[in-house]
Amino acid sequence: MAFKQKGKQSISFENPPVITGAASVVGKKEAEGPYGKYFDIIEEDSKLGEDTWEEAEAKLQETAAKKAIQSAGLKTKDIRYMVAGDLLGQLMASSFGLSDLEIPLFGVYGACSTMGESLGIASMIVDGEFAEHVLAITSSHFASAEKQFRFPLGYGNQRPKAATWTVTGSGAIIVSRSVRKKELQEKAEYDRVSDRAKAEKGKVKIKGITTGKIVDYGVKDSMNMGACMAPAAGEVIVQNFADFGCQPEFYDKIITGDLGKVGKDILIDFVRTKGYDIERQYMDCGIEIYGESQNAQAGGSGCGCSAVMLTGYILKMMEKGDWKRVLFVPTGALLSQVSFNEGNSVPGIAHAVVLERIS
Amino acid sequence: MAFKQKGKQSISFENPPVITGAASVVGKKEAEGPYGKYFDIIEEDSKLGEDTWEEAEAKLQETAAKKAIQSAGLKTKDIRYMVAGDLLGQLMASSFGLSDLEIPLFGVYGACSTMGESLGIASMIVDGEFAEHVLAITSSHFASAEKQFRFPLGYGNQRPKAATWTVTGSGAIIVSRSVRKKELQEKAEYDRVSDRAKAEKGKVKIKGITTGKIVDYGVKDSMNMGACMAPAAGEVIVQNFADFGCQPEFYDKIITGDLGKVGKDILIDFVRTKGYDIERQYMDCGIEIYGESQNAQAGGSGCGCSAVMLTGYILKMMEKGDWKRVLFVPTGALLSQVSFNEGNSVPGIAHAVVLERIS
Repeated sequence: MAFKQKGKQSISFENPPVITGAASVVGKKEAEGPYGKYFDIIEEDSKLGEDTWEEAEAKLQETAAKKAIQSAGLKTKDIRYMVAGDLLGQLMASSFGLSDLEIPLFGVYGACSTMGESLGIASMIVDGEFAEHVLAITSSHFASAEKQFRFPLGYGNQRPKAATWTVTGSGAIIVSRSVRKKELQEKAEYDRVSDRAKAEKGKVKIKGITTGKIVDYGVKDSMNMGACMAPAAGEVIVQNFADFGCQPEFYDKIITGDLGKVGKDILIDFVRTKGYDIERQYMDCGIEIYGESQNAQAGGSGCGCSAVMLTGYILKMMEKGDWKRVLFVPTGALLSQVSFNEGNSVPGIAHAVVLERIS
Repeated sequence: MAFKQKGKQSISFENPPVITGAASVVGKKEAEGPYGKYFDIIEEDSKLGEDTWEEAEAKLQETAAKKAIQSAGLKTKDIRYMVAGDLLGQLMASSFGLSDLEIPLFGVYGACSTMGESLGIASMIVDGEFAEHVLAITSSHFASAEKQFRFPLGYGNQRPKAATWTVTGSGAIIVSRSVRKKELQEKAEYDRVSDRAKAEKGKVKIKGITTGKIVDYGVKDSMNMGACMAPAAGEVIVQNFADFGCQPEFYDKIITGDLGKVGKDILIDFVRTKGYDIERQYMDCGIEIYGESQNAQAGGSGCGCSAVMLTGYILKMMEKGDWKRVLFVPTGALLSQVSFNEGNSVPGIAHAVVLERIS
């Protein structure tokens, strides 16, 4: 077994990569929600001055990417790779939004779990010494997602209570190489390296990942994605506990992407049947992002949802020291308009990322 | 700079991963072409006994994955990760085709360049010591692709000469850890390890990769994807020469994915303006896969095209010893039906993989 592997599905990084930059860009509705003050950039115009919803979403990614690079004190040329994805067919927002950066691209798709996937791949690239800095980014847009997966906005369809509201937003993270122990041991370099090590204090590192499998319990309701995704989230969380030999208390928070109110209850019950109680630590980005009066039904969703909550809120809470260790679990419903129309089920997938504050 | 990096966009692997298993599954038209005898499995029924084209494509992936695992002498449980993608919105073929394998999944999208992307990520995972064995797989299907990107088959549209024919097929590769030099130096283990090293002889290793950027020259014709992709292929090939400090003669073959007859001429001219002549080594999977009489216009395409030519033909030519070193460059047109209908250009991307026979 390769020595960085941990248990059946996890990796424990030898030199955990550090998050050196992050940015969140959201739309008006997200800015009006309870976390509005935490987001870095607010776009009042839902089309961002573009002609189409897809171009607007592409612009969200471009804005988030540039802001994250800047927040890390880096230039575009310092970023070796982008690991990017969105919900649109053929990753339209990433393809068009990121082309001007001229950075080698790995396009990824894991539905709303994509931020977990891109952070996982970015961390392996950095810990494996293939790059100093990698950009991990995802986005979603309410209008481009509704048009693609459900109904055109002009149709004005009614939304059942189990439906979620796709977040308009993009979150971008710079995953960077950490100071290696062996570097600190090399005396000639000590001062320079120890300054870098000091600078890492208070930042958040990616200590490990648990990569999810496709989980299909046969749920077919695209208006109830929480139910589709909850078993996938449950399996990857329980596997994380098993692989790292820990209990839920190991984490200050266990945060899923967008299970919403329906998925939350299913998840907590599912995990309980496996012998763990996560109710005290549990939080869901989708439930949090909109207020009760915002008419968002079961909550927010989309791969922008967990991405902006991570970059806008979760990392800031960790850097402040309120939370030391967080299990971040973006959740995806592997739904397509074609598979849905053909009567297929909606399989789920979830990827867990172990975040820890460097003290 | 991390020490595995090579030049501006490349990696030279410290312990190049070995291809220990491969499988190609194709449809009837591909089997009737000049390379028919090389493919491992031929599916005479274009629906593979399924109800829809998408389910048929999913079945192609499932069949290829199982055959590749078997050809490596492994069990499904030995595979730590799958890096998988296809052309369909939300990666339908991968999501539905691979779920029964129950292996942690990284879904990837790079249009027809996806096999280059998945091999790149799989190689980094293995060389970075995060896994012993990783499955890299892609697929395409003529009918599901036409339905999604162009016209329903029943419409019977005419095809211009620059159009390509999407290959029905899936190629799967097992990327495995190679014997490390330091392992051979540890005497106690010598016999066991040296047997493994002997077993690697004649196999193909992944010596390096050059990851591509999005390249957009403003071409808008979805019926002329060769022209859209050729500059991306040209840039990544020239970058590979620069990063590895080599000339075209370093390679016995330089093989692109699916530029077709139109893209081929553009590519050779493009590379020539940069000071390199690749005409002698050059080959394109799309031009090769169908015969002149097969009415495939400019050639084959789709992320199954380069995948089945790699697994069916290229690797076999290398294992036989006919070719020692190959630059494999799958090429992708970042086209979506929505971006096309909205009048956008078709950006291209290409990822290069340096393959070398272990002697």
